[in-house]
Amino acid sequence: MKEQGLSSRIIETPGPISLAAYDPDDTAGMSHQAAEQELARLQERMGTLQELLFGAGEHSVLIVLQGMDTSGKDGAIKHVMSGINPSGCRVWTFKAPTEEEAAHDFLWRVHMKTPPYGMVAILNRSHYEDVLVARVRRLVPRTVWEARYDQINAFERMLTENKTILLKFFLHISKDEQKQRLLAREQDPAKGWKLSVSDWEDREYWDAYQQAYEDVLRRCSTQWAPWYIVPANKKWYRNFFVARAIVERLEQYERDWTKTLDKRSKQERAALRDYRKQMDGQTTTSQK
Amino acid sequence: MKEQGLSSRIIETPGPISLAAYDPDDTAGMSHQAAEQELARLQERMGTLQELLFGAGEHSVLIVLQGMDTSGKDGAIKHVMSGINPSGCRVWTFKAPTEEEAAHDFLWRVHMKTPPYGMVAILNRSHYEDVLVARVRRLVPRTVWEARYDQINAFERMLTENKTILLKFFLHISKDEQKQRLLAREQDPAKGWKLSVSDWEDREYWDAYQQAYEDVLRRCSTQWAPWYIVPANKKWYRNFFVARAIVERLEQYERDWTKTLDKRSKQERAALRDYRKQMDGQTTTSQK
Repeated sequence: MKEQGLSSRIIETPGPISLAAYDPDDTAGMSHQAAEQELARLQERMGTLQELLFGAGEHSVLIVLQGMDTSGKDGAIKHVMSGINPSGCRVWTFKAPTEEEAAHDFLWRVHMKTPPYGMVAILNRSHYEDVLVARVRRLVPRTVWEARYDQINAFERMLTENKTILLKFFLHISKDEQKQRLLAREQDPAKGWKLSVSDWEDREYWDAYQQAYEDVLRRCSTQWAPWYIVPANKKWYRNFFVARAIVERLEQYERDWTKTLDKRSKQERAALRDYRKQMDGQTTTSQK
Repeated sequence: MKEQGLSSRIIETPGPISLAAYDPDDTAGMSHQAAEQELARLQERMGTLQELLFGAGEHSVLIVLQGMDTSGKDGAIKHVMSGINPSGCRVWTFKAPTEEEAAHDFLWRVHMKTPPYGMVAILNRSHYEDVLVARVRRLVPRTVWEARYDQINAFERMLTENKTILLKFFLHISKDEQKQRLLAREQDPAKGWKLSVSDWEDREYWDAYQQAYEDVLRRCSTQWAPWYIVPANKKWYRNFFVARAIVERLEQYERDWTKTLDKRSKQERAALRDYRKQMDGQTTTSQK
């Protein structure tokens, strides 16, 4: 586990995790205003990096968002991703499996949505639900979900070895913050249709979910696919945090992608010169 | 064909079309500044309407973008759609068919990408390529592409009868504007990798493409799926035009969607009251 700033919440090496040790209210001493200004800059950087990713076509980017109800998965997608060209990014929301999905192994429906090279895919919930809700609500026997952690690690290792850049974010909110958000939703006349008794019922399982998340972070944090624990009680800090993590990660590839594009640029310019020479030749010939 | 403003470029009824009669420089007397201000307002409206579309889940929205190289399909997607929640919108770019795509009828790959109810899909190029490039470059015999206009109309009719709202935009630029844009791309060091000899080769077929587009507009403009001819030499007017057309179209459904959501809101609030009564009852009982 690393020590400073953002890095202190990147879990790269397996080991016991206590979510209680991570403050969901943390903002690393940052002000709301500073975070918003920084977010605007990061969105622009993200746009630039995404164009390089797309042009080079050598890697794909897979972003996994997990968190309790109201933890802000939708909000993060909306605010963080608005800098990205929608042509290069797809969002997939995973709900209870359809009949067809349930008739396959649990990774099948996720694998179907992994991004092609050059593209970004964002998963709003993911294969991790199969060791979260499936475990907490006892949808499958223990032996089945127990085996899934290793299956997930092998799957994610294969993806990253095949040039998928994988980022996994756990949006960490407190139980009280969730209550405030659910109540606020009730006060909003325009959001009445989003209310659901099941949101309140799920709160009964809060502790079991936290424990299931701790096991996910403990067992599926790998060097090739680390988890980020995002302090998410403050929406503005959550947005900044996620944006910065993505930009920092993609910047590691910037030089390589630029090199690839420079090379292609030279080839295309040379081909264009040849084409024009040929065209000029034809004009001269026909003028004779 | 309607007469005023935006409507004058909506082609609803089949009939001869001469693209020469449509000025690609047209801005309907609007200033650059006014169009940008209006665009910001339209983006916000689009966000609201998309949330209603998503919540109601009764219709889907399919947006088709066609136009010559550099006509601004990517630009329109990037600028017009930035108001929409990326979770509710997917962009699909159609290139030369893959082996698997080519092993099916020409509508198959497009049908695979039509949006589920509640969602927006944007097609960057589409099934119309099969009566455009396929015709101009003689990829299939005339009898084959001739039959496709009716097949397209039947397909689109089926989609709209099954609650897909379909908008088709032809981004209309002049041949000279295209030349300026291709040359500008060459001057931009960061865009060298986007250059391609084939862009210049395609210009040799400009007139054939314009004629093919005229046939598309003549034969595939229907009441259920009209074409919009978008004056696209000015990027800021193109963006405003497309945004306004989408907002005006979705506004026709706003009242219905709101009604559906109000009804669901009432149901959810009632269910929540029942749940709380039951919980209070349990507390009272256990306290006894």
